[in-house]
Amino acid sequence: MDCPVHDDWLEAEFAVDTRLRLQVSRRLHCCRSAFQKIEVVDTPRFGRVLLLDDVINVTEQDEAVYHEMLCHVPMQAHADAQRMLVVGGGDGGIIREAVRYPGLRRAVLAEIDAEVIAASRSWLPGVSAGLDDPRVEICTTDASAYVHGHPDTFDIIVIDATDPIGAGQRLYTPEFYRDCRRCLRANGILTAQSESPFFDTELVTHIYTLARKWFPLVRMYTACMPSYVSGVWSFMWCAKSPAQSHLPCRTVPAGLHYYSHEIHRAAFALPPSIKRQFGF
Amino acid sequence: MDCPVHDDWLEAEFAVDTRLRLQVSRRLHCCRSAFQKIEVVDTPRFGRVLLLDDVINVTEQDEAVYHEMLCHVPMQAHADAQRMLVVGGGDGGIIREAVRYPGLRRAVLAEIDAEVIAASRSWLPGVSAGLDDPRVEICTTDASAYVHGHPDTFDIIVIDATDPIGAGQRLYTPEFYRDCRRCLRANGILTAQSESPFFDTELVTHIYTLARKWFPLVRMYTACMPSYVSGVWSFMWCAKSPAQSHLPCRTVPAGLHYYSHEIHRAAFALPPSIKRQFGF
Repeated sequence: MDCPVHDDWLEAEFAVDTRLRLQVSRRLHCCRSAFQKIEVVDTPRFGRVLLLDDVINVTEQDEAVYHEMLCHVPMQAHADAQRMLVVGGGDGGIIREAVRYPGLRRAVLAEIDAEVIAASRSWLPGVSAGLDDPRVEICTTDASAYVHGHPDTFDIIVIDATDPIGAGQRLYTPEFYRDCRRCLRANGILTAQSESPFFDTELVTHIYTLARKWFPLVRMYTACMPSYVSGVWSFMWCAKSPAQSHLPCRTVPAGLHYYSHEIHRAAFALPPSIKRQFGF
Repeated sequence: MDCPVHDDWLEAEFAVDTRLRLQVSRRLHCCRSAFQKIEVVDTPRFGRVLLLDDVINVTEQDEAVYHEMLCHVPMQAHADAQRMLVVGGGDGGIIREAVRYPGLRRAVLAEIDAEVIAASRSWLPGVSAGLDDPRVEICTTDASAYVHGHPDTFDIIVIDATDPIGAGQRLYTPEFYRDCRRCLRANGILTAQSESPFFDTELVTHIYTLARKWFPLVRMYTACMPSYVSGVWSFMWCAKSPAQSHLPCRTVPAGLHYYSHEIHRAAFALPPSIKRQFGF
């Protein structure tokens, strides 16, 4: 496998005209799965970094922000979430957060690429730790087919998908969002990573247009992700019932780094320019 | 003046181990003043970009975030701010925001480097526009001396300083913060850019330690700055009176891009890890 070392710097693609150069202390893993190039490197700045097709996917330094905000925001707003589906998320970070809840009975990980799960188990044990919880079922499958085949099953769906290239494309269709709504139980909540609101605004608009077609209540919230393009990440919140509050109503698990009720509430505050741009 | 073109990419220094590469469409200006290297380039991503010593200082795309949050947060919390001092801020962005208030009687810009003001006037007219307001007085002077010589003068001090290298060092001393407190009138408020809470945490700690020595009430708030290292920027809020609220109490000027009362309140919510790290 060809993994050039570039002087011990890594160049991650932020966008066609923007790149992040990061000093690398060690190249740990590199392979090409049936779906993508998978690489793990160690860096002085962000600790270990998982890259998929040269895009930074997970870093030890800030993964907690992403995983906590994508998981706890719906879990804290739902009064009694017992069943969760994670779409993508093969690194296991969302599952690690979900299994903090004693009331959770079942969490299904629908990740198409078994090599991502394997890389995370080998190189990011702190992220993948939750995958061995007995309540977790790992399905290395196309999540769009899984969702289609499981109506009325989950209280929470978390979409932790890569960008809409290759296999990921099926997760950016109207049919997929229609099926996700059907897959949710009454009062179900879906959250999805929805890209940087400051960079690929066309893609952000596309994601929200898909969701608004099928969900009566769609909101955006944001968090700080220093290793992702622009440093700010948006997350989409969709409720099956228009009466569902997005505000937290449960006790916060101990040991979190980024999430709190204060942060949860603040994350839904959007600047006027973002509201105008995305129709909020 | 030597301005190499690097294939039409710009490499901005984020940190010793982290750099941002940005495609450049045109190099507009490059000079070396008595204090620093000053460069203006045009980019497809961020529009025009002002760099000081190879660090991104202002971009057309996101300057409003920085200037609105540094200026309106204190202006909105103070019931009747009539006199403002801007330390640094030669691009004029803070002044542009300040002169939106009819009640403002006087704004002093204490910028040591006249070449920064000139570059902004020439290449960033949308940022420097407010500098010609009749209430504005431009002093190309060392702000630490200015502050020392003007006790009990201003309702608001905004510190829009570069990093503590070269001339900027005098703005990172206990004496400077002591003088700033004296320079404020009763109920005065000081805000300062206080770097990325995710990157140079030693410098952030240093800034807050300086302020806490002299101000009874010190808080941190944050905003999204895609062109700055980590994409998240922190701002320091210091009140001369411990009774001063940080919450907004005035009508918001029209035409803002990022600031709103909702964003103002949300900006003071800090994640648990940041609270622990910086003692909040």
